Amino acid sequence: MEDNLRIGVLGGGSWGTAIVKMLSENLDTVAWYMRSESAIAHLKKERHNPNYISSVEFDTSKLELTADINQIIEASDILIFAIPSAFLESELKKLDAPISHKIVFSAIKGIVPESGLIVGEHFHEHYNIPFKNIGVVTGPCHAEEVALERLSYLTIACADAAKAELVAKHFKSHYIRTKISDDIIGTEYAAMLKNIYAIAAGIAHGLGYGDNFQSVLMSNAIREMKRFIDSVYKMKRNINNSAYLGDLLVTGYSTFSRNRMFGNMIGKGYTVKSAMMEMNMVAEGYYATKSAHLLSEKREKKSKTPIINAVFQVLYCDKNPKKVFKKLTEKLD
Amino acid sequence: MEDNLRIGVLGGGSWGTAIVKMLSENLDTVAWYMRSESAIAHLKKERHNPNYISSVEFDTSKLELTADINQIIEASDILIFAIPSAFLESELKKLDAPISHKIVFSAIKGIVPESGLIVGEHFHEHYNIPFKNIGVVTGPCHAEEVALERLSYLTIACADAAKAELVAKHFKSHYIRTKISDDIIGTEYAAMLKNIYAIAAGIAHGLGYGDNFQSVLMSNAIREMKRFIDSVYKMKRNINNSAYLGDLLVTGYSTFSRNRMFGNMIGKGYTVKSAMMEMNMVAEGYYATKSAHLLSEKREKKSKTPIINAVFQVLYCDKNPKKVFKKLTEKLD
Repeated sequence: MEDNLRIGVLGGGSWGTAIVKMLSENLDTVAWYMRSESAIAHLKKERHNPNYISSVEFDTSKLELTADINQIIEASDILIFAIPSAFLESELKKLDAPISHKIVFSAIKGIVPESGLIVGEHFHEHYNIPFKNIGVVTGPCHAEEVALERLSYLTIACADAAKAELVAKHFKSHYIRTKISDDIIGTEYAAMLKNIYAIAAGIAHGLGYGDNFQSVLMSNAIREMKRFIDSVYKMKRNINNSAYLGDLLVTGYSTFSRNRMFGNMIGKGYTVKSAMMEMNMVAEGYYATKSAHLLSEKREKKSKTPIINAVFQVLYCDKNPKKVFKKLTEKLD
Repeated sequence: MEDNLRIGVLGGGSWGTAIVKMLSENLDTVAWYMRSESAIAHLKKERHNPNYISSVEFDTSKLELTADINQIIEASDILIFAIPSAFLESELKKLDAPISHKIVFSAIKGIVPESGLIVGEHFHEHYNIPFKNIGVVTGPCHAEEVALERLSYLTIACADAAKAELVAKHFKSHYIRTKISDDIIGTEYAAMLKNIYAIAAGIAHGLGYGDNFQSVLMSNAIREMKRFIDSVYKMKRNINNSAYLGDLLVTGYSTFSRNRMFGNMIGKGYTVKSAMMEMNMVAEGYYATKSAHLLSEKREKKSKTPIINAVFQVLYCDKNPKKVFKKLTEKLD
């Protein structure tokens, strides 16, 4: 594996910003694409992203900032995508040239709405990128704690171990440890599914269920996640590794998780629409719920997913959360 | 299984009190032993336990209160022990007659210091109770949430399924669901080990580690727990069931867990002695750490237990928590 491959990060949100911070600890140059020209101007002048984890100060001499997606793609060998899945396709539509020869890592937690695929599969099917050149960067990792340089563990997954090792090497620092995995399908599904379970945790909390129930919900969630992922792609994986269980826990138990907050509002009586308006954003788990439900419907080998089904009923079928969750409690153990 | 077996609860702490509350929802009579004559007098007069979860009001016409352990044992067929493991043997020393013909359920999370055994094994080896008459009542369940009648799930384990079913039936109510298990060894070890991991979570929190790290710690803890329990007694069990993972999570993530609080104080710089004095009690995980460490040392088939080892180093070898946990972070993934 060549060591001088150039890395570009796409996305100016909190996770993209955290990734650039982590990489800047090791690399002399990080190319960074974000849509907002004004954010770039602010970054160049004030050395921090005005909109996300603003406490992080960058050495801007290391950053190659651009608002032109074609420019970063031309300048980079490894592309790390940290664009919300809902906006990915509209960004990729701007491409002038094929990207089939690039190495693409997804740091996105979600399903591409246009294709109904997880990001890795989407790049494989629609951009002709071979699976050996597709990878995943996953947590458990809140961007806010990266900003504070609190010790965090990343999992870097790629079917090609050398590429996973290379990318991992650039992330490692005094506050980042990394683990390699070959499970790009499972880690990406886990990153998506956990947001649904975080919404479920939020709804339960909003409805007044306590800590005892939350622990039962999470214990059922990890078993449901295992069944789901195994039915998508069976391979030897320990679902209790950090990239699966750890990621579920950091999202499900954090009061700062936006998905959990979204669920909490719904449990407290907000409608789905008003919760979205109040939050001024759409929680990723909202889309993930629909996608996971569709995937479950489509698959021949069905797995039991009572928690996803309950969240789907609440978010998409206008069902009463209290009643839906009462029924759900009878299916858990 | 006879349905008219008489049940007696031994222990006047918060968990014992919660158990009596749960049983009183179903039974006309519950025998209840506690050491304190004055607590009994208070209960009879004011209808609540003066010392623990005092918000629970009892129908005292259902309670057969006694401070005489021999009396409750004579009056009961099924004994549910909820006495802290550190005091169990001194209580049992008061017995006038053998109890080998009784059915004994342990609601105790810990190791009997005098024998170094979990409670079920202790009753089997030292009181000649056959394993088919030994059971476990376990959570995830904070007594405080039982007091609030928040939905909680109990696991009732017994090698004899009929006995497990019988006991479970008496616990079920509008806020309690039950699950049956045949794993009396594993559920009891889990209930003990989780207190050690809660101390670890507390120490990490006290040292300033954040949510990202906590999730990695818990993800490693459940894998360590599985290795430990499998090496003690291998059988088919799903470690992600509520009685194992759920119980770990409710303890490890609760800021109200006394074991977590104890660890937190140590992480913040208290000595072990001063933390105990400040809390005015000894956290059960303190003894469990020593016992688990001894068990690990004794066993031929050793399992890797870096978290237990780290907690042992801090609690019993006067090692610097910051240094010990820094080393521990290198062993986790």
